[in-house]
Amino acid sequence: MTSQQRGGYAKGDARREAIVEVATEVFGTLGFRSATMLQIAAACGISRTGLLHHFPTKESLLEAVLAQRDRTSALVVPLPSDVADPDLAAIERLIALARHNASSPEIVNLFSVLSAEAGDPEHPAHAYFLERYAAARAELAAALTRLAARGALVAGTDPRALAIEIIALMDGLQVQWVLAPDSIDMAAVLRHRIQAALLPPYVLR
Amino acid sequence: MTSQQRGGYAKGDARREAIVEVATEVFGTLGFRSATMLQIAAACGISRTGLLHHFPTKESLLEAVLAQRDRTSALVVPLPSDVADPDLAAIERLIALARHNASSPEIVNLFSVLSAEAGDPEHPAHAYFLERYAAARAELAAALTRLAARGALVAGTDPRALAIEIIALMDGLQVQWVLAPDSIDMAAVLRHRIQAALLPPYVLR
Repeated sequence: MTSQQRGGYAKGDARREAIVEVATEVFGTLGFRSATMLQIAAACGISRTGLLHHFPTKESLLEAVLAQRDRTSALVVPLPSDVADPDLAAIERLIALARHNASSPEIVNLFSVLSAEAGDPEHPAHAYFLERYAAARAELAAALTRLAARGALVAGTDPRALAIEIIALMDGLQVQWVLAPDSIDMAAVLRHRIQAALLPPYVLR
Repeated sequence: MTSQQRGGYAKGDARREAIVEVATEVFGTLGFRSATMLQIAAACGISRTGLLHHFPTKESLLEAVLAQRDRTSALVVPLPSDVADPDLAAIERLIALARHNASSPEIVNLFSVLSAEAGDPEHPAHAYFLERYAAARAELAAALTRLAARGALVAGTDPRALAIEIIALMDGLQVQWVLAPDSIDMAAVLRHRIQAALLPPYVLR
């Protein structure tokens, strides 16, 4: 590949990334349904035809927004490769994510609005959220089950119910935080709840 | 008032109530922003002009939907007047509300979608939700503070943080429940969490 070709790819990628960033904000503010491709194009400073060249439908743009959001979450809060306790690290990662989200209102908005809208089976992100929540519950329940087997959880804790509770807590905190960011410390409330389920000597960072 | 007059009022009221019921479903499915007055009128089987006679703007209809929702919640889960322990009863009421919500997907949808959309300061329900959450936190924190003063809460519990947590849990459970109603028992998870904060002999019904 010549440097010119690479430059061409890079330019197209940069334009796509810029569009996805703008769409994240527009979907997060207006919701997927009420946002229009024309509004998104205008916010990007390009024509509707220019936008359709990169994303032929609003659904394809939504898909790119969700994929980018997942990549960003994985990047900002990577699972360290050399952790002493991977199960505890998986939980600490959720707290780090909540802390990171407090610096990204546009991502929090996006997720609150889309996950609520997607309750409708007709919504294009319905399957995405259905699978995403099922996977998140299964993954977290598995980590908690391993912690329970090691005697790290308070007696009587149901790992699956606790997984549902922790995920619900993260989502619900976002709703309150968006409305009153100065009153709600998402990471602190989450950390406190999870720590309460752990027995000594297990302490979350 | 003659019976004829009463009949007239009752007919108008019944029509308004029917519109509010339909609008609750439409706003809950499509969101406030993307729903149109024409869609709501069609779903009611009346003309747009007929709808505008009762509700001149989409905002006025939203206001009626939220007011009706608050009345319904208060009616289905009344605070008993003869309770032995009003603070505990206030908490049990939340669990009863979660149980009731599991039979009202349209109300749960409405609340998930509107509270998320309302994070945008430009949304017509922004002030409603801002005040509603602040009041809910204050009310619940006050009940928990009184319980703490009586030694009913686990040592180290911060009543305000617990109030934020309980409200967040209720909201977040709704998001998962709408997507997978058979996998999520909202009332059970909520009850378990609150019971874990209480010391014997305090047991939630």
